[in-house]
Amino acid sequence: MNTLIRDTILIPMTSPEIIVGSIAISGRCIVSVGTIPSDFIPDTIIEGKGKIAMPGFVNAHTHLSMTYFRNFRDSVSNLQHWLQEIWALEAHLTPQDIYPASLLGIAEMIASGTTCFADMYFFPEETARAVQQSQIKANLGLTLFGDEKESNRRVTEYLPPLQNLQQESSGLLKIDIAPHAVYTCTPGTYRIAAGTAREHHCRVHTHISETAQEVADCLTMYGETPLMHLYHSGLCDTELYGAHGVHLTETERKLLAEQHWSVVHCPSSNCKLASGIASVPDLVHDGVSVALGTDGASSNNTLDMFKEMRLGAMLSSASTGKPQAVTPYDLLQMATIGGARALGRDKECGTLEPGKDADIILIDIESPHMTPLNDPFSALVFSASSSDVHTVICAGTTLMENHELRTIDTQQVIREVNNRWNTLKQEN
Amino acid sequence: MNTLIRDTILIPMTSPEIIVGSIAISGRCIVSVGTIPSDFIPDTIIEGKGKIAMPGFVNAHTHLSMTYFRNFRDSVSNLQHWLQEIWALEAHLTPQDIYPASLLGIAEMIASGTTCFADMYFFPEETARAVQQSQIKANLGLTLFGDEKESNRRVTEYLPPLQNLQQESSGLLKIDIAPHAVYTCTPGTYRIAAGTAREHHCRVHTHISETAQEVADCLTMYGETPLMHLYHSGLCDTELYGAHGVHLTETERKLLAEQHWSVVHCPSSNCKLASGIASVPDLVHDGVSVALGTDGASSNNTLDMFKEMRLGAMLSSASTGKPQAVTPYDLLQMATIGGARALGRDKECGTLEPGKDADIILIDIESPHMTPLNDPFSALVFSASSSDVHTVICAGTTLMENHELRTIDTQQVIREVNNRWNTLKQEN
Repeated sequence: MNTLIRDTILIPMTSPEIIVGSIAISGRCIVSVGTIPSDFIPDTIIEGKGKIAMPGFVNAHTHLSMTYFRNFRDSVSNLQHWLQEIWALEAHLTPQDIYPASLLGIAEMIASGTTCFADMYFFPEETARAVQQSQIKANLGLTLFGDEKESNRRVTEYLPPLQNLQQESSGLLKIDIAPHAVYTCTPGTYRIAAGTAREHHCRVHTHISETAQEVADCLTMYGETPLMHLYHSGLCDTELYGAHGVHLTETERKLLAEQHWSVVHCPSSNCKLASGIASVPDLVHDGVSVALGTDGASSNNTLDMFKEMRLGAMLSSASTGKPQAVTPYDLLQMATIGGARALGRDKECGTLEPGKDADIILIDIESPHMTPLNDPFSALVFSASSSDVHTVICAGTTLMENHELRTIDTQQVIREVNNRWNTLKQEN
Repeated sequence: MNTLIRDTILIPMTSPEIIVGSIAISGRCIVSVGTIPSDFIPDTIIEGKGKIAMPGFVNAHTHLSMTYFRNFRDSVSNLQHWLQEIWALEAHLTPQDIYPASLLGIAEMIASGTTCFADMYFFPEETARAVQQSQIKANLGLTLFGDEKESNRRVTEYLPPLQNLQQESSGLLKIDIAPHAVYTCTPGTYRIAAGTAREHHCRVHTHISETAQEVADCLTMYGETPLMHLYHSGLCDTELYGAHGVHLTETERKLLAEQHWSVVHCPSSNCKLASGIASVPDLVHDGVSVALGTDGASSNNTLDMFKEMRLGAMLSSASTGKPQAVTPYDLLQMATIGGARALGRDKECGTLEPGKDADIILIDIESPHMTPLNDPFSALVFSASSSDVHTVICAGTTLMENHELRTIDTQQVIREVNNRWNTLKQEN
């Protein structure tokens, strides 16, 4: 099956180059970008005029099924109280609750141009089903909490079936090992995560230095900061990506760069929970690969990468006093190839290049808020909204066309999530 | 003509109360909110199920026709250089350029739920034509720059025709006097603005303490901060609203409260240009009425009040270290009644109340990113986007229905703005 996206504004994200041209797709892969070989015969033609074509977004940190807690009592003044309410309800979530909540989150992500995400939550096998159904790509973390014994049990019990799902998924699904954070995992759990990563070639997905309190507590408990503690608990030389990285020292940034570990910047969550503002310009300066993530819908309250890019740009200017300390192109890189790198998928997606998967989104530019277009990078970061996403293709499969999802019955999923959420609230 | 908006989630913004009910509109006014009198016979029924009804947004500070400069070379590293490029092109704008650029900006504002705005730009008579065409509400500033002589000329020449337009507008149009800023106006110009405001019952629209440099220069030049300088240049006891207010002292906040002067918070512009973060929690604490504004599209790069509310919320948490230091309800107040107060329209709009104009927007909530809805205030500020606006009514006239603009031919305006902009760039 050959598809041609014709006469569009191409942003390949391999460089700050903008090409007016077409893209040829054969099966799941891109075969050419810009000029199309004369012998390419398309079965389907997608009209790209009045649109920008770019790589799909990679949302590199979320807790997908927290969609239930979106906008849930977050006006309460006491953060700890609010978290306890959420945790109390979370404890009652069943596997049957996770599938529709995951599907809802995936529907939101596809509609806003995300073609790949990294998740860390309960019952990843249910989220895996939603990934299979929707045909999006995902790195799903097998989450570890607590001590060595519990972590051993979880790895032994859950990893083999998750790896089977990975094998059946034609590369859409990857299983990561996800020790939650220094304040919820013992050093023994980190060692198990490290061993699992090495034995099974998994990536490690964790939280790093989200709050000042976390850093202070870690210093008190272990005599070193969270990142150094991870490093010394066996994770040295694994392939790791850490969410937040709000409170990092220069030494830590240099270690991150040296280890090729990615930091997933989550500006909405960090602002909303008042965790602080990550010094992204310093991370970039010190050579750390930065990705972008929405975090869970309870602390954001969306899964919208346009909102993350815009806020990321605004915070970098405001916090440094330098307009565009991080440029729109930098933000777009974080939201695409930066995420792909964090998830170990940079050979496969994150840019538009021949041989890579066709993970492509088309964005409408014929609207008042995108007129005049002028600089497309600025337009995408500052002016665009998720609703400008017109078409979403993942590994050659069209997941959304003309704003209509193809693999998810949105209205049915909305009804089911509302029903389950109302039951959960009433019963608990 | 009687209209009924039936069975909706009502956010009147008179208090943090949420009502499930209907709204009755007769002619341009709201006649009841919540329960509808049995003798109200509607000519038109609008289905409100699956939607939130709330007051239209008031964008209390913009430079509308800067839409031309949206996303224009703003990745350049030098702010001063960028501004000079814009000013050079701005000098070539003709009255014929202003009408379509205003109409484009108004199309964007209506589509994103704004029913009233305050503008300060060249050729306000052309923007007034666009207001008449589109049937939105606007406070248009007669802008003053330079010295007393030039300001006298401008007031004498331009005020009478603008006031005629105001009188013919059935209250849609109000003319304000707009001395630009301390760094562009002499004290004599401020005295003329004050005299004009008193004689013609105009409000005063100006810029206040946008950058630290502005404050430092004003201290050097006049020995006092910009607000104190305004106050002592004759503007004491006029009705004034000032954009930005990023760098204000406690004494100045107290003066603002005492004078009932509003500050128009412009978070996107302040972040993007690295002007700083206004201490909105302090303004609120000290009793200052705060409105929200997008500023011009060149420093934002949209006219989207959802983006302003969300960024305002995020910045208040991040800058104070307190989650929701300014609550979603506070932000919604700034975006509605706070703006109405700044523009001297709080008796007429800004809340949904019987007797006020029917300036009402309906917002879709049946989408993945608004599910579950949970707290509607959080949902509107954190999760919603401008594209969720379904219907816009201003003074009883429907300006948008089911996402279709009724008073503006969007595609035609986009074409004209693109053509004029391309010509402007090529010729200059």
